Amino acid sequence: MTGREKTSDVFAPITQQMDEIRRDAAEIIPEDDLVRKLERSLARNEPLRVKQGFDPTRPDLHIGHAVSMRKLRTFQQLGHEVIFVVGDYTARVGDPSGRSEARPKLSPAEIDANARTYADQVSSILDVSKVRVEFNSKWLAPLDLAGILELTATYTVARMLERDDFAKRYQENRPISIMEFMYPLMQAYDSVALNADVELGGTDQKFNLLVGRTVQERYGQEPQVCLIMPLLRGTDGDAKMSKSYGNYIGLTEPPEEQYGKTMSIPDALLEEWYELASLLPPAELAVARELVRSNPYQAKRELAAAIARTYHGDDGARRAAEHFDRVFKQKAAPDDLPVVAVSLSDPALRGNENGVSLVGLLVVTGLAGSNTEAVRLIQDGSVAVDGEKHRDRHTYVSTDRDHVLRKGSRHYVKVTFIP
Amino acid sequence: MTGREKTSDVFAPITQQMDEIRRDAAEIIPEDDLVRKLERSLARNEPLRVKQGFDPTRPDLHIGHAVSMRKLRTFQQLGHEVIFVVGDYTARVGDPSGRSEARPKLSPAEIDANARTYADQVSSILDVSKVRVEFNSKWLAPLDLAGILELTATYTVARMLERDDFAKRYQENRPISIMEFMYPLMQAYDSVALNADVELGGTDQKFNLLVGRTVQERYGQEPQVCLIMPLLRGTDGDAKMSKSYGNYIGLTEPPEEQYGKTMSIPDALLEEWYELASLLPPAELAVARELVRSNPYQAKRELAAAIARTYHGDDGARRAAEHFDRVFKQKAAPDDLPVVAVSLSDPALRGNENGVSLVGLLVVTGLAGSNTEAVRLIQDGSVAVDGEKHRDRHTYVSTDRDHVLRKGSRHYVKVTFIP
Repeated sequence: MTGREKTSDVFAPITQQMDEIRRDAAEIIPEDDLVRKLERSLARNEPLRVKQGFDPTRPDLHIGHAVSMRKLRTFQQLGHEVIFVVGDYTARVGDPSGRSEARPKLSPAEIDANARTYADQVSSILDVSKVRVEFNSKWLAPLDLAGILELTATYTVARMLERDDFAKRYQENRPISIMEFMYPLMQAYDSVALNADVELGGTDQKFNLLVGRTVQERYGQEPQVCLIMPLLRGTDGDAKMSKSYGNYIGLTEPPEEQYGKTMSIPDALLEEWYELASLLPPAELAVARELVRSNPYQAKRELAAAIARTYHGDDGARRAAEHFDRVFKQKAAPDDLPVVAVSLSDPALRGNENGVSLVGLLVVTGLAGSNTEAVRLIQDGSVAVDGEKHRDRHTYVSTDRDHVLRKGSRHYVKVTFIP
Repeated sequence: MTGREKTSDVFAPITQQMDEIRRDAAEIIPEDDLVRKLERSLARNEPLRVKQGFDPTRPDLHIGHAVSMRKLRTFQQLGHEVIFVVGDYTARVGDPSGRSEARPKLSPAEIDANARTYADQVSSILDVSKVRVEFNSKWLAPLDLAGILELTATYTVARMLERDDFAKRYQENRPISIMEFMYPLMQAYDSVALNADVELGGTDQKFNLLVGRTVQERYGQEPQVCLIMPLLRGTDGDAKMSKSYGNYIGLTEPPEEQYGKTMSIPDALLEEWYELASLLPPAELAVARELVRSNPYQAKRELAAAIARTYHGDDGARRAAEHFDRVFKQKAAPDDLPVVAVSLSDPALRGNENGVSLVGLLVVTGLAGSNTEAVRLIQDGSVAVDGEKHRDRHTYVSTDRDHVLRKGSRHYVKVTFIP
């Protein structure tokens, strides 16, 4: 935390504002424009309008989203106006081509509920009471064909086809509906409607944000500055964090989950996560970077605590650390692990004189979806019985007492046998 | 004229209808669909809806337009419903990009006036009282963004870029505004709004008409049949007839102009013009084709008479022929040629003992804009004095009597000298 909460009507000096805005930003396009806008803001004592879009069809936020949110907090602290644009219009319309499952049609009640959830989720980072929330149906719903022709006249086909995914699909002869050209224009029109000074987005949003600049200019406005934030990689270290990749840490997940998932990330991600996800102030970050080099394990524990602390306070972070010690560090099963009663007469168990097959047991307890998956899990070394790994698919487990089965690092089941 | 005016509610047999529709058509896409539609029309005793667009920013019709008009008359005679779609919505909007001078913004009064002119002009070919006139603002004005997204979802970027002019410009890196993709979709939406069975257009409209098929299908309608009509070449024989090329014969031009312009076409155009512009019935056409081969000059005179007759009746055609004989054939000046009084003291005349220079005379009388142009006209053999051509730029004309100057085949001036 920088700790500075702006209360006066006077803005900080430009260099200080630029330092804080620039920190962690992937790109500021163009930086000169931002300086000019800040100078004018200072001279006129007027806040900048800083825009962040929100897709109400995807209300679940994760710590990857926190990267932008923290930057918005910085703008709040510098005295500027943060505007959440809820894309309710497109959410109400859905995808008329019916091809995209990612764009379901939502009712107004669902959109409102999702917008509320969104505000709740970011309240641990931002001062939500100071955020201006706008639904883009306000200016998109009244648009008629004449207005839309005017909008489509601002941009060329060739420039739109420069967007990476469009270029790739066009080259590969995969269809691009003309409708898909409308979405960047609509997002740009949001910037026109708000006369936005700055728009935030991840590196994957860079093209759309730049369209906003062009379109604003065609409408006689000063183009917005595009503040491109880096994308946090997911817990697997492979791709950007995303719910659909299953490699995310939700903002509202319990502290134990946040802590445990953080402990599962590859060491190579530590520095990036410290920068983007810890929300630590610069001084503490410098110390953390040292620790990453000297003791990655300890650095990871402190990162996990910092993340749990951000969203659940000191208590939550401590509880999460204790839980982790119990479950993972001591290799003991957690206290409250689920108990599954297994009938010895279940034919799926396939017993012999040594007991029942581990493969069958994984399936019967639900830890594996099929024999094939159970075999793969065992051969991968992902399965332990009473804390001991078994890599032999022909492992048999005695039935004269209870056992604790573990799959992966965090799925436990206590098995008890009934005749 | 085929002479058959349909009055009963019974449609003609399919083969007869197909024969009449097919005559002179460049393409019917697809012919099978048209047969099916005609069969259903016959079975249900329901007329087909035959659509023809009209751009109210270009109300001046020429005999090239008559090609489609005659085909529409055929549909009327076969008992089907002809619908003129006045593109008033786009005319009211103009071109928001401001780049096209061809798409000026018109007031509702101007649009109405142009639509009325249009009806007047075609009344010599069609039964205008039976034509249904629709203004496309009726269905385009109420469209909101959701409706437009639905429309843009029906077509892909790649398919739109297949249109010849788009493909060429895209390849040459010349800008195509996304707005330009909207116009074929709007034209297609007209077909949806009317549930059109057939749309007529010139070969240059083929792409847009085909878009209509795809879009109708996406809206759950049976796709229209595209009836592609050949484009009449202009009086110069080089390009399609168009006001902007100055190679046209207007439907409302005086018979003398229509006759004279027809007499100026190259012989190579005769057969095409007979087919497309004479509006003669098949039997007379066969005779005319013979005449074209045996006596092109006579064939041209009869074509000129046929065209003047279509738009100005027998009297007009006869007057035009007489006028032509007087002016062109007998190489005599027309009766009512303008008289220009030339002052002998005008320094531009540059006289010598033989009289005044022809170059100067052409300039002073306004037949040439400059000495350079006058010299070129003389050397090209375009200038005659008292019916005699002069190709020598150093020609001098006596000033002791009046002369008749001729430029080209049809510009005459009577010169009288004053001291």
